[in-house]
Amino acid sequence: MKHIYLTPGPTELHPVIEPALTYALNEKIFSWSHRSKQFDELSQKTIKSLKELLNIPDSHSVFFVASGTEAMERVLESCVEKNSFHFVNGSFSARFFSIAKDLGKSPVKQESALGNGFDLRSIKIPKDTELICMTHNETSTGFMLQVQEIEELKRSHPDKLLVVDMVSSAPYPDFDYNLIDCAFFSVQKCFGLPAGLGVMIVGPKCLKRSQELESKRIITGSYHRFVELYEWSLKSQTPETPNILAIYLLGTVLEDLLKSGIETIRTKIKDRASRLYSIIEKTKFASVFVKNPVNRSDTVLCIDTGSNTEKLSQFLNSEGFIVGSGYGKFKDKHIRIANFPGTSDRDFELFVKALESFS
Amino acid sequence: MKHIYLTPGPTELHPVIEPALTYALNEKIFSWSHRSKQFDELSQKTIKSLKELLNIPDSHSVFFVASGTEAMERVLESCVEKNSFHFVNGSFSARFFSIAKDLGKSPVKQESALGNGFDLRSIKIPKDTELICMTHNETSTGFMLQVQEIEELKRSHPDKLLVVDMVSSAPYPDFDYNLIDCAFFSVQKCFGLPAGLGVMIVGPKCLKRSQELESKRIITGSYHRFVELYEWSLKSQTPETPNILAIYLLGTVLEDLLKSGIETIRTKIKDRASRLYSIIEKTKFASVFVKNPVNRSDTVLCIDTGSNTEKLSQFLNSEGFIVGSGYGKFKDKHIRIANFPGTSDRDFELFVKALESFS
Repeated sequence: MKHIYLTPGPTELHPVIEPALTYALNEKIFSWSHRSKQFDELSQKTIKSLKELLNIPDSHSVFFVASGTEAMERVLESCVEKNSFHFVNGSFSARFFSIAKDLGKSPVKQESALGNGFDLRSIKIPKDTELICMTHNETSTGFMLQVQEIEELKRSHPDKLLVVDMVSSAPYPDFDYNLIDCAFFSVQKCFGLPAGLGVMIVGPKCLKRSQELESKRIITGSYHRFVELYEWSLKSQTPETPNILAIYLLGTVLEDLLKSGIETIRTKIKDRASRLYSIIEKTKFASVFVKNPVNRSDTVLCIDTGSNTEKLSQFLNSEGFIVGSGYGKFKDKHIRIANFPGTSDRDFELFVKALESFS
Repeated sequence: MKHIYLTPGPTELHPVIEPALTYALNEKIFSWSHRSKQFDELSQKTIKSLKELLNIPDSHSVFFVASGTEAMERVLESCVEKNSFHFVNGSFSARFFSIAKDLGKSPVKQESALGNGFDLRSIKIPKDTELICMTHNETSTGFMLQVQEIEELKRSHPDKLLVVDMVSSAPYPDFDYNLIDCAFFSVQKCFGLPAGLGVMIVGPKCLKRSQELESKRIITGSYHRFVELYEWSLKSQTPETPNILAIYLLGTVLEDLLKSGIETIRTKIKDRASRLYSIIEKTKFASVFVKNPVNRSDTVLCIDTGSNTEKLSQFLNSEGFIVGSGYGKFKDKHIRIANFPGTSDRDFELFVKALESFS
């Protein structure tokens, strides 16, 4: 049986990947020089499609790095002399915080229990904070901040830079990027690509900040510091030989998503998540891990399956589906279901049927 | 016409890549979790094959990063508090030096003209040098250091760490890795993979050094510092989601190279290079850029084609071959010919015939 991967990433490849790879091998796209006009056009096309899909303003640049984790490191290196502020309620927001510590910064965190949110209006962010780090979608627990929560926080702190980790939610959240100084995602989540590419959306305030740090002789990194990434991005290139295969595949998936239209995709994700959550809420064998419905992730659904975890996973497996296990200490107590745009209607309906038939 | 890419990387894909990709798509390998047993086994297999092919001792670890450029940054971050020493005679050795400067180190360089070597016995390496950085094969100029030059330098400086950039020569040089504290390469050169993976071979002295720096509270990076890469490597994993596709493809190419045997491959590369150099030496339209025969690269041949550059490139193109242009200021004055293991005998003979027929 060929299983369908509904795992939070790496995940089932988007259906356009296979024909795109065949085409690229035939055209020898992966032999192109990363300093050629052909590559520039490919890279330009991918960036143009991304900006169109997410409605990213011209003021913002797009940088290619190797992973979401690298993006965390690079934004901290390029935009923070000392003080970053982190909202931490899961493993990935905790990683963002610990990378800041590794880099010798003095990060401050506001912590909340796993699966719980923050009372964003009452939180005091220290005056000397340079960068506020928020995780839109905590892949480890299925906790999703609301877009308006993030945007309001920026409106009330206009003098601070804001970076949003949207590793496992992009292109779902409908951000006004004029309020987002930096955002980043990985391609092996919602975009259904093989892993190996991180994408950063970087606004002018981050670039300016990074130039200021450099003029103060602060170390901001080397080949992937923002100033260097920006200079190369003007030529649609990268400082090093990048993952051309992934940049090409991302362009192909974006083209497909643009055909559907972002509103259709967002509605589909929202509707599918609602259906899955309502099935879970009706069962006795499991419950939704995030208690507050407004913070339940629409792209990575985390289900508290307790002692039924193995039985449910095996049942879904026998029905043709592989779901994600729980993260870290919840490995044997949760399942995580990816709700990404690449899943066909047919596969989704079969999964719903399988989930409903478990008892 | 389907051209054969004899470019110094990205280059023609190794013939096993296409069937391997088809197999992987069918088996859904790129949907595997990077924390799964399946991935551990894949990663283990790739590392085992690499160690076997290059005869790397058990004392050395293999780390996966994103590019050769990243490898330069990571070894400098993890192994140097202040002083690195660089042999610079081309763009890539110069990049290694400039990355050290970007990172706030105090690098010292021994410079030589492009295409020229170093009198390694007479060079005084400062006493406080922590890391000696050598570029085995300067991709920009086709200059290759001899293996014994590098090994002798280490023997005469046993107290200093030695890192060797073998980006565009691995697996060709037959190093005694007991003398190499760190080496790294990119997969889009001799291994004929799509770009997007850097591989680091890291010995125990580099790891120890990196632990010492950390105990002195020196910043050594974050998720890709050696101490963290090492901890994850014990589980055959990486801190972040890596380029699983490239790790898988590298394993497949390594398996093919092991079938031929490393001696056969090295002999083939040496013989082919000799044949190409002797053709060039007999012509009037071009000359070998590197004057000293012992330092002519066997994997990236740099030919000074002067005013004949465009005509020759176009002729080779019409014969079905794409060669590399000159690097940087030599863009219109040199061609660079990749001599990588993946080229079939048939294609190589056709290329020889084409080159010989140009006048």
